[in-house]
Formats: sequence, structure tokens, C-alpha cells
Amino acid sequence: MTCVFCSIVTGAAPAIRIHEDDDYLAFLDIRPFTRGHTLVIPKRHTVDLTDTPPDTLAGLTVLGQRIAKAARVSGLHADGNNIAINDGKAAFQSVFHIHLHVVPRRTGDKLSFAKGLVLRRDPDREESARLLRAGLARLEHTAQD
Amino acid sequence: MTCVFCSIVTGAAPAIRIHEDDDYLAFLDIRPFTRGHTLVIPKRHTVDLTDTPPDTLAGLTVLGQRIAKAARVSGLHADGNNIAINDGKAAFQSVFHIHLHVVPRRTGDKLSFAKGLVLRRDPDREESARLLRAGLARLEHTAQD
Repeated sequence: MTCVFCSIVTGAAPAIRIHEDDDYLAFLDIRPFTRGHTLVIPKRHTVDLTDTPPDTLAGLTVLGQRIAKAARVSGLHADGNNIAINDGKAAFQSVFHIHLHVVPRRTGDKLSFAKGLVLRRDPDREESARLLRAGLARLEHTAQD
Repeated sequence: MTCVFCSIVTGAAPAIRIHEDDDYLAFLDIRPFTRGHTLVIPKRHTVDLTDTPPDTLAGLTVLGQRIAKAARVSGLHADGNNIAINDGKAAFQSVFHIHLHVVPRRTGDKLSFAKGLVLRRDPDREESARLLRAGLARLEHTAQD
């Protein structure tokens, strides 16, 4: 049985990528709660919090933080973010390759999010990805100043 | 204005503690989604993902992982956990001292969690805390074997 996230890592399955380095990959969720909803995964397959090395989890979270900050400074104009890991089927985990959700939030989207009244469809995924990548680049630029 | 989590760190405000070390504190949420719902905080005050140093966030998450694993091996018999950081008011952050939620989950509690039909009251908080602490101790014991 093939892991869909491992297939995304190898390129066998498509994904709109936000960031990639030797150890991690970040790409848009295909059923986003909000625009820019991103999944961050370690390239090396582990299932959940029980088998993921602490160092790997630390790197995963720190990359998630960078994307959350990028969402705020990006053209998505996020006012905040929900960061989440669903650890195990009992916690709604659906793909059994550990992943961290970064869900950019805007003031006033509360109700639709709380009620689950979300289409989970982004009318322009490529543009959302472009904005997030630009946000990441902007953060790096700022860090170098 | 006093930060309630800083008051918990100093002991000025009460909390049922799960774990404490030089840099971090973990204690039970006073309005738990599930039994054992724990908040993990850095002792040093920061607000959200925009001002928390990446190293601090990494340590916060790794402690959260330990508590999540402890919940599984503990007498709470968790089958999984939701890990979450609400970064900013737009993302439902209500106390502006960064905190990581660890919400132990059991198979079959899905509906009540999803519908928000939770009392957010634990009939025996002390017992929940005792079980989690025992789980942590058990993990440490295992690691030393």
C-alpha cells in the first residue's frame, strides 16, 4: 500500500508546493478549511506522535511557524493561524503520515469556521500558493536585513 | 495587567500541574474538551507565533509530544490526541501567553467532540492529573530500560 504523502514527496502524486528542503515538504491541503491551508510533513515516513523522533517533530513545528508568520505578512493577510496535529484515528487523523496543519485565519471568519460551513475548495489554489511563497521570501528578506 | 499564565508559573494562581522544568510548565485546562486536556506553556512570557523564539516553540512541542504519548500509556487510555496552537485572536486564542493544547482522544468520542457537546468540566481533575503524571513516569521508565 502506497502512502499518498510519500508519493507527493517523490513527485509521483501532484501537490502545490509551498516550501521544500532536504527533510521537509509543505504543500496546500486539497480540502482547505481556509485559503492557504497548508500541510507540513517530514519527507521520511512516520505515522504519528508515537513513532516520530522528537527532533523531527521540532523541525516540523518550526517550519509550520515560519509558514504561519508568512501567512500574516503575505497577500493572504492572515490575522492569525490554527496549528494542529491530529495524532491517531481517534483524533481525526486521515492520512497516516504525520502532518502539521497550518490554517491561516482572518478576523471575522470565526463563525463559518466554527460551524464547519466551509466549501473546502479554493477558487485559486495557485494564487494562494504564490502569496504564501512570497510571504516566506519576505520573512527571509527581513531576517537578513 | 497581569497575565494569568504568568501567575500560574509563579504560583500566584492555582493550577493542577502535570509537568514542570526550568523552561516549561504543563497543567490541566480548566475547561477541558476531554479528560486530561493539558496546556503546555513556556515559563517566559511570549504572546503567539510571531514573537516566540523557534527554539522555545520546538521545546514546547516536544514536551507536548511526551504528554500525548503519556496519555496513551496512562490510565486515561487515550487512543490519540489533538495537538493545537491557536495563534492570534482570529484563531480563537483567548489567553495571550502562547500555549499548546494536548487533547487526549478516545475512539468513539468523535461525535461529542465534533458537535461541541462537551461539558468542559472534569468530575475528577486530580485523578486525571495523577494518571497523566503516572503515564509520563512510565514513559521515562521505558526509555531507561
